[in-house]
Amino acid sequence: MNQPFRFELIHQSKKSRARVGRIHTPHGIIDTPNFVGVGTNATLKAIDSQTVNDIGLQLMFCNTYHLMLQPGTETVKKAGGLHTFINRTGPIITDSGGFQVFSLAYGGVKDELKSRGQKKMDNSVLKINEEGVLFRSYRDGQKILLTPETSIAAQKDLGADIIIPFDELPPYHIDEKKLKASLERTHRWEKRSLDAHLASPNNQAMYAVIHGGVDQKMRTESCKYLTSLPFDGFAIGGSLGKTRQEMFDLLAYTMPQLPTDKPNHLLGIGDLASLEYCISQGIDTFDSSHPTRCARHGLLFTFAGTKKILQASNKENFGPIDKECTCMVCQKYTLAYIHHLFKANEMTGYTLATIHNLHFMVQLMKQYRNAILEDRI
Amino acid sequence: MNQPFRFELIHQSKKSRARVGRIHTPHGIIDTPNFVGVGTNATLKAIDSQTVNDIGLQLMFCNTYHLMLQPGTETVKKAGGLHTFINRTGPIITDSGGFQVFSLAYGGVKDELKSRGQKKMDNSVLKINEEGVLFRSYRDGQKILLTPETSIAAQKDLGADIIIPFDELPPYHIDEKKLKASLERTHRWEKRSLDAHLASPNNQAMYAVIHGGVDQKMRTESCKYLTSLPFDGFAIGGSLGKTRQEMFDLLAYTMPQLPTDKPNHLLGIGDLASLEYCISQGIDTFDSSHPTRCARHGLLFTFAGTKKILQASNKENFGPIDKECTCMVCQKYTLAYIHHLFKANEMTGYTLATIHNLHFMVQLMKQYRNAILEDRI
Repeated sequence: MNQPFRFELIHQSKKSRARVGRIHTPHGIIDTPNFVGVGTNATLKAIDSQTVNDIGLQLMFCNTYHLMLQPGTETVKKAGGLHTFINRTGPIITDSGGFQVFSLAYGGVKDELKSRGQKKMDNSVLKINEEGVLFRSYRDGQKILLTPETSIAAQKDLGADIIIPFDELPPYHIDEKKLKASLERTHRWEKRSLDAHLASPNNQAMYAVIHGGVDQKMRTESCKYLTSLPFDGFAIGGSLGKTRQEMFDLLAYTMPQLPTDKPNHLLGIGDLASLEYCISQGIDTFDSSHPTRCARHGLLFTFAGTKKILQASNKENFGPIDKECTCMVCQKYTLAYIHHLFKANEMTGYTLATIHNLHFMVQLMKQYRNAILEDRI
Repeated sequence: MNQPFRFELIHQSKKSRARVGRIHTPHGIIDTPNFVGVGTNATLKAIDSQTVNDIGLQLMFCNTYHLMLQPGTETVKKAGGLHTFINRTGPIITDSGGFQVFSLAYGGVKDELKSRGQKKMDNSVLKINEEGVLFRSYRDGQKILLTPETSIAAQKDLGADIIIPFDELPPYHIDEKKLKASLERTHRWEKRSLDAHLASPNNQAMYAVIHGGVDQKMRTESCKYLTSLPFDGFAIGGSLGKTRQEMFDLLAYTMPQLPTDKPNHLLGIGDLASLEYCISQGIDTFDSSHPTRCARHGLLFTFAGTKKILQASNKENFGPIDKECTCMVCQKYTLAYIHHLFKANEMTGYTLATIHNLHFMVQLMKQYRNAILEDRI
């Protein structure tokens, strides 16, 4: 415990950029590639930290934006940091808060694709300038200034093992000139974040966020600039395109420009159809609320495909979700019972579905690691 | 396992009618007096059966009315009965469905007290006559006939260790003549229920429900009639009055009229302020959703009183809910964290609060049993 952050390469596939590794953190090891569960409000939805441990999820993502507003990062600091606050012994990663603030300001790609055009600035975002973003808390109306320096201070209060510099999230539909201006500002913000981090060094690691949208030249520029700074790893962020293929193309030209001796993270992607390709491009960790959100909507993952729990055929199916699955839920409960819990709107159903889907992700990642070790990916 | 139902008296207090006993059921022992957790839809709200076991809750109450509508008692029967369906190894008790149906028809005491007078018959109740009650499922509009015979058939499908005869729940505000007519019909229905039960005997036990509202003469009549029949135990039901004192008075004159060699249950009462008096009158088990509902509303039980989790003073209280408490939640989580989960509307908060309150009830009941063993109650 409390050993410094480092990435250990275990095996580089002969077939692709995929690799098996180990990220050593002050709170233990993350075997890679791996899935990162999202616990926005300092808990994964519908389960507690003990259950997360039991499932074997090695890295948990928490959102600085949400924790700044509730309970406030000072409170978490007084608790002794996030690990103590939520009683988690394993590694945690936090983001900068930028993603959420700029989603409020610009809307996400989905909003744009729904032909709503570029969303007007949300009322809660008061000002965006070189210093940072001034916004109003949706909880108590308090004005909050989020800058590289305040984001890093907040993330130091939280005390996650891995932290992320403050960046701008430009909209997908943006002209080249504006994207270039945004990229340059993001670079300045990331440098300021790194400086703020290194000014009071601790055992936290900081991953840069590679930007540039779907513009190959700008992604290249971002890789060049950010890899020249002493970051501990690299996350792929910004707009990842509006289709899966666009994201794949982006990874294909971006990933080879990153050093192989540091870990890589893909921000906000974790849908099953994307994983293998991303892994083959050298992505080590993925965070996504997809498996837990699917669970609460009754979509259960198995190696034979996704099952819809509310389907009538499950009403009297007294077998487990997945006969091969070793999770607590598949040992103890039937499809019929979980179907009933969903029909009766019982929270217990959401909990059981969440445990199963997360256990599936942990097993899936083990399979990917084994496949890489055998050069099958 | 699978031993027949019997009540074993361990100790009769020298100070009151309170007693310590053991109810032996086909699914294990219930130490009495004890609290019975309510799992209306075949789960306690916000926790699963495994957690219920871990907490040590020895008896679980399920509602036949709800299970008839969802998933249907035939489905539970096909699953192998309630125990298998919900994966519970411990004892279960079901009610007849009458309480819910008549609540729909007449409204509860609370509705009456709110000066809404006697509620008009709910549209979903189509007919009440000597045969039983015809009502419409709120789920799919299907007409369902609930009679002594169909209720017992449903409860045999469910397969709980303890079942309850079909009875009428008359409103609190009712004249003597109508109460008398209702009592007589309830007695006929309970006899029909018992006959239906004994016509296809199995290892289920049946508790009669003593009626008579707050009329001492009629309670006496109910005790006389029902104790003359071969029921395995006695539940106190019907209107228990509009104040706690009215219920206490009712128990004071009713309980001495019940045999001491059979177990007694108090239906739907489990608030902390009522327990000790009811125990002193010889009540062995109580079912109530009070502790779990309080939990979801952020009211946490301790031996020093109830704590409101949302109180601002808990925001930075990094101690457990209760320093003396040995529950999983008090070992692992702080008031500050649970406060945060409630503020952030995270289901995990409801789960943790539920585990704590149920664990408290289990400990409280142990204390009551010890107090009786020492003749302190």
